[in-house]
Amino acid sequence: MRFCRYDDDRYGVVQGDKVHDITAIVEKVLAGKKDPRWGDPMITHLDEVRKAVGDVSALPSKPVASVKLLSPTARPSKLIAAPTNYHAHVAEMSERKHERPASKGIAGSGLFLKANSAMVGPGEGVHIRFLDKLNEHELELLIVIGKVASEVSEDEALDYVAGYSLSLDMTVRGGEERSYRKSCDSYAVIGPWMVTKDEIADPNNVAFKHYVNGELRHDANSKDLIWNCQKLISEASKFYTLYPGDVIFTGAPAGVGPVKPGDVQTSECAAIGNMEVKVYAYKKPA
Amino acid sequence: MRFCRYDDDRYGVVQGDKVHDITAIVEKVLAGKKDPRWGDPMITHLDEVRKAVGDVSALPSKPVASVKLLSPTARPSKLIAAPTNYHAHVAEMSERKHERPASKGIAGSGLFLKANSAMVGPGEGVHIRFLDKLNEHELELLIVIGKVASEVSEDEALDYVAGYSLSLDMTVRGGEERSYRKSCDSYAVIGPWMVTKDEIADPNNVAFKHYVNGELRHDANSKDLIWNCQKLISEASKFYTLYPGDVIFTGAPAGVGPVKPGDVQTSECAAIGNMEVKVYAYKKPA
Repeated sequence: MRFCRYDDDRYGVVQGDKVHDITAIVEKVLAGKKDPRWGDPMITHLDEVRKAVGDVSALPSKPVASVKLLSPTARPSKLIAAPTNYHAHVAEMSERKHERPASKGIAGSGLFLKANSAMVGPGEGVHIRFLDKLNEHELELLIVIGKVASEVSEDEALDYVAGYSLSLDMTVRGGEERSYRKSCDSYAVIGPWMVTKDEIADPNNVAFKHYVNGELRHDANSKDLIWNCQKLISEASKFYTLYPGDVIFTGAPAGVGPVKPGDVQTSECAAIGNMEVKVYAYKKPA
Repeated sequence: MRFCRYDDDRYGVVQGDKVHDITAIVEKVLAGKKDPRWGDPMITHLDEVRKAVGDVSALPSKPVASVKLLSPTARPSKLIAAPTNYHAHVAEMSERKHERPASKGIAGSGLFLKANSAMVGPGEGVHIRFLDKLNEHELELLIVIGKVASEVSEDEALDYVAGYSLSLDMTVRGGEERSYRKSCDSYAVIGPWMVTKDEIADPNNVAFKHYVNGELRHDANSKDLIWNCQKLISEASKFYTLYPGDVIFTGAPAGVGPVKPGDVQTSECAAIGNMEVKVYAYKKPA
């Protein structure tokens, strides 16, 4: 099943080129339930929502192309991200001079955080700060956590997954901490929706491509991850508890490149779906 | 005014050694208001809450010592923290071998994030993971943001503050990213309450001390901050929008040191209040 959020915080299920409105069903499931201290309320109760939704074909629908897609998780406790998790990306970055001191690799550096407030959906676009600096896309497979997870083994890790999305780990290059320069508003795009895990035979074998203005940038497959999905979840859960709706950006494959206001980014993924993200210049709210 | 959260998510105002229960007043102010997308609902409406609270002396009260103090902000969009922001702390860390490559200083590294899910109040205690590694306390002045802030100047920065607290930026030492090894559950203690900014004449002149089992560790004053409170807010707001209830850990002064299960940490601060935090071993929830 493909769950999305769209327009003015509506919930939907995507089938074909239509989004079916399940907002009233989600609200009914959540009514009277205590808000979880951490994590996304809808994803916390995803199993119950799925049962209540049933067959969506009778529900009112709109063309997906006509809606503003938001991030499928609304209130994660944290956005976790993996640095240097594809060998070919490590190789491309090692040739650059403007980055931090040489990477220690993911086993040395562990994971990092992006600010929750950086999270948007594809319909909201990326709004570039620091037009004088290099701003780059990193298109990544994203894991959405479905159950509270602490110190879970790699063998059991996928039991804690709700589903998968695509994600753009937008990045300002520079010497600052990753959790700073990757946390600008809109620098964590999640979309186009969340595909529940039953539809992904193997998350470590998902092919995806990314284009900027039609030019191919990433041509990747998650089978090349250094820490695979199970390892990412297990390692993360050693440091902190994972909550439903928390996400893990699994890492950038080779092909990262610059974006600037006016660009259009498009991503293709047969297993998840395609998404389009426009690029604007950041404007301070009035 | 000294606002706290306590026991089972109750709101209180602390006067002398009593906490007065304002939960019903806060709930009345928030009733019918749309949940903010980011940030803490109560702190978003703090001015209205203050007006509604008025004189607390007639409200039911309990001794502060009898309640379980929670973090005064319930739902920040992010926990921001400053690395290497006191010269004397930079000096003490430069003598160590087990840390990351030599610090570039705060101007080079910028700020970092701690996971929201790491946030607790003093009454919840610190629960140490990785008993085989060095776990240390860093007691810091904490800024609580009160208004949405984007690209604000240093001159106007304090207009965006709700108040101040003490905070423990608990840390696992090692080579990993700061946002990873400082984000274990309970490694972000905020308390004992939030003192509204009108009660702090100058946040860049707040003295505080920290003890472990009665042994003095930190004896510090925020006048020694390298980036002062205004600069921290202004710089943070260049990278991302700050929301009400977001916090900035202003950085560790000299005197960081190890803690282990069984220890009792006590902090003294005439301007804010005193707090006690017990240390336990982390146990995976059943």
